[in-house]
Amino acid sequence: MPVLDLPIRLDSSQRGQTRQLHAALRAAILDGRLPAGLKLPSSRALADQLGINRNSVVAAFEHLAGDGFVEPRPGAGTFVAVGLPMPVVGGPVPDPPLPPPRRPFGLGYSLTDDALLHRLAGHIRRRVLTAQTADLDYGDPRGSAHLRREIAQYLAVQRGIRCDPGCIIILTGTQPGIRLLADGLFRPGDQIWVEDPGYDASRFTLTAAGLCPVPVPLDGEGMDIETGGRDWPAARAAYVTPSHQFPTGVAMSLRRRLALVAWARSRQGWIIEDDYDSEFRYAGPPLTALAGIAAERVLYLGGFTKTLFAGLRLAYLVAPPEILPQLLAARAALDRFPPSFTQDAVADLMAEGYWLNHTRRMRRHYRMARDRVVAILRDCAGPALRVDVPAQGLHLLAQLPEGATQAHAIRDAAGVEALLLSEARLRPDGPEGFVLGFSGHPLADLEQAAQRLGQAARDHLG
Amino acid sequence: MPVLDLPIRLDSSQRGQTRQLHAALRAAILDGRLPAGLKLPSSRALADQLGINRNSVVAAFEHLAGDGFVEPRPGAGTFVAVGLPMPVVGGPVPDPPLPPPRRPFGLGYSLTDDALLHRLAGHIRRRVLTAQTADLDYGDPRGSAHLRREIAQYLAVQRGIRCDPGCIIILTGTQPGIRLLADGLFRPGDQIWVEDPGYDASRFTLTAAGLCPVPVPLDGEGMDIETGGRDWPAARAAYVTPSHQFPTGVAMSLRRRLALVAWARSRQGWIIEDDYDSEFRYAGPPLTALAGIAAERVLYLGGFTKTLFAGLRLAYLVAPPEILPQLLAARAALDRFPPSFTQDAVADLMAEGYWLNHTRRMRRHYRMARDRVVAILRDCAGPALRVDVPAQGLHLLAQLPEGATQAHAIRDAAGVEALLLSEARLRPDGPEGFVLGFSGHPLADLEQAAQRLGQAARDHLG
Repeated sequence: MPVLDLPIRLDSSQRGQTRQLHAALRAAILDGRLPAGLKLPSSRALADQLGINRNSVVAAFEHLAGDGFVEPRPGAGTFVAVGLPMPVVGGPVPDPPLPPPRRPFGLGYSLTDDALLHRLAGHIRRRVLTAQTADLDYGDPRGSAHLRREIAQYLAVQRGIRCDPGCIIILTGTQPGIRLLADGLFRPGDQIWVEDPGYDASRFTLTAAGLCPVPVPLDGEGMDIETGGRDWPAARAAYVTPSHQFPTGVAMSLRRRLALVAWARSRQGWIIEDDYDSEFRYAGPPLTALAGIAAERVLYLGGFTKTLFAGLRLAYLVAPPEILPQLLAARAALDRFPPSFTQDAVADLMAEGYWLNHTRRMRRHYRMARDRVVAILRDCAGPALRVDVPAQGLHLLAQLPEGATQAHAIRDAAGVEALLLSEARLRPDGPEGFVLGFSGHPLADLEQAAQRLGQAARDHLG
Repeated sequence: MPVLDLPIRLDSSQRGQTRQLHAALRAAILDGRLPAGLKLPSSRALADQLGINRNSVVAAFEHLAGDGFVEPRPGAGTFVAVGLPMPVVGGPVPDPPLPPPRRPFGLGYSLTDDALLHRLAGHIRRRVLTAQTADLDYGDPRGSAHLRREIAQYLAVQRGIRCDPGCIIILTGTQPGIRLLADGLFRPGDQIWVEDPGYDASRFTLTAAGLCPVPVPLDGEGMDIETGGRDWPAARAAYVTPSHQFPTGVAMSLRRRLALVAWARSRQGWIIEDDYDSEFRYAGPPLTALAGIAAERVLYLGGFTKTLFAGLRLAYLVAPPEILPQLLAARAALDRFPPSFTQDAVADLMAEGYWLNHTRRMRRHYRMARDRVVAILRDCAGPALRVDVPAQGLHLLAQLPEGATQAHAIRDAAGVEALLLSEARLRPDGPEGFVLGFSGHPLADLEQAAQRLGQAARDHLG
């Protein structure tokens, strides 16, 4: 009578010995320790060996037979099934490209503090504790009504956008929003104007969604609508950052805004307005959003990545009511909606004024960081860098003198993470320079990095 | 000298009178209260009228001019700009189709209790409070390492799946997972076998992603692989629910599992295994997942919608390591990742054993609900319904006698929400019956609904 030569240990303090034995035998069969065709011990012998009830063994055998892992042969015993596929052990697991840790001039970071986390944690906790059944189920595909009301109010007061909260869709991020627009409004291959230079992540998302981003050049007034119309007359939409062009920092002039709106109206095209950093305005009131002057052709994207933090995964889209049904249909096959408790907790932060205060507090920090970086760069680089002082946002541009091309070498010498202007551009030629993020980094780190970059620029170009 | 005939009220207790005045004037210009060409009062007159400092008015005018909303004409004054586009007020906001409130036999609901919410709220709160910088930024595109480790351990013990936590991708839902696979692995138009009848939401997602789900019939052993191969030889993948087919409840036999694996291996095809309810097993150990016997061809989908709740937005995918890079690249243009604090809080629930205990506790409730519904339906309907007792899951099937077609009428008479078998089917003909969800509904409601449905069936067919 065979004895099972396996170190099976059942935890007798736990119920479910059948379940434990079944799992142990299945694992042994699957990994080959019990080879195909092997005769198992009788249920009585195995029960004796393991010190458990025979019925438990019989039941485990029956389940294994039901699974197909063993074959009972009447009068002969129970055998490990023949012909089971052996699992192929996967190859080594590749390490995916992780986002880099924060380094000075890295873009898109936000500053948070313990006070914010404490307040947010309290709101989330309360929202989870008081969740109603409807909050736990699939909800309104537009997201929390509470958060949409707060956003609508903020947009009206701060951005000159008047919209019904019903026209707001809460997103898990701006890129998911662009993806939603791609799926809900456009057809594969549709051309979309993008600013050149521009935001590469959005270009990537448009391309991944099967669309065709086409570059339109900029000048001091923003996207050159006339050139766009001449070069890409068939485009169905324009993706723009009019309040503070990424990365150049240009604010689109009203003339250009009107030209863009006229273009969109004339062909029933769409304007995707990515208003990614207008909460951080250092000089004067924020510019009126395009969605404030042509709501019926504008798809407005805003979010909480910069005023709160990226890991929260919250952004929003304002869309004309006519296209909501098609957007929501597309959304059902994408990410659906973020958890209600996160949305409602952020709405709580807004309703009590905390969010606006936090944003103001952070704006002061960012402004100080901007001013320090500008001062040091100008001081160290001299004429080797032309440093713009952005009126808004979390990055600044430091350009090389016309014709200079040593940006790579300077960056390497300085050992900083700066994005190069040429890396944000689709066309091969144009001015060269550095796009420098100054938010979410310790001031001392920024100061040192600015010194190194300024010095390296002077060394190469002085 | 014109006086501004506008009820502008500045809050003198607030700083930023320039900002307030700018916003008020902009709003009035945009909504037409200050028409194009109107001459504004002088800054001095307006300052007097409003009782504020003249410099504040000058600054507001300058900002409005910068925006392009007003035109200063030297020597003549400041005028509302001509040629501004008037915003088109959006049409009425349509109410999107909201998910219906829970009604007896509605599918996919889960039971939660205060104890679970309390524990979850505590974990989330602690995770937010103790968040490190890396937790607030863009993180590992696979999601929380902590949660992936817990899931890997659960899958090994309970589902016979041995996988490196590095092969797990945390999702915001099962459908987002299917979408991710569609984007990362397939080309537009690729055929995907789906069970017929089957889960309509997954078919919808596949279609929305540009793929072509093609129906493969079922029998008592699950998907008919042979017919699939004959009818749709070019298919690149199969989407299956082998542990507990939705909606019929059939468990795929080992023979069929092996045939499906052989088919996938022979053509480098993929098996998408949606293991949507195997945590709720009422009889015997859970069946071994396909991912436990052919990990290299199986894309395994599991989630927390049924053991916790849908609004949490957490699910996961186990994928062979070779295809992780392409999946993660696709993910960058989809939803990226869920918030780290939600993921880590669920990992905490798992690590302390609470999640498994909660699942066991809910399983007892669901089993009781199942047994009550079965008993009442059998009692009330008699031979008019053939009621299966599912060994697993949160729904059961009540079929009409062969040839009977009165399902719509019976459902209407009973006033219940049941999905009809015919509604889950692509082919026009086949058996008729009701797919009845018994989870997440009060027991008394289920009992009454079962009585009504059973009675209506007997009235129509008795």
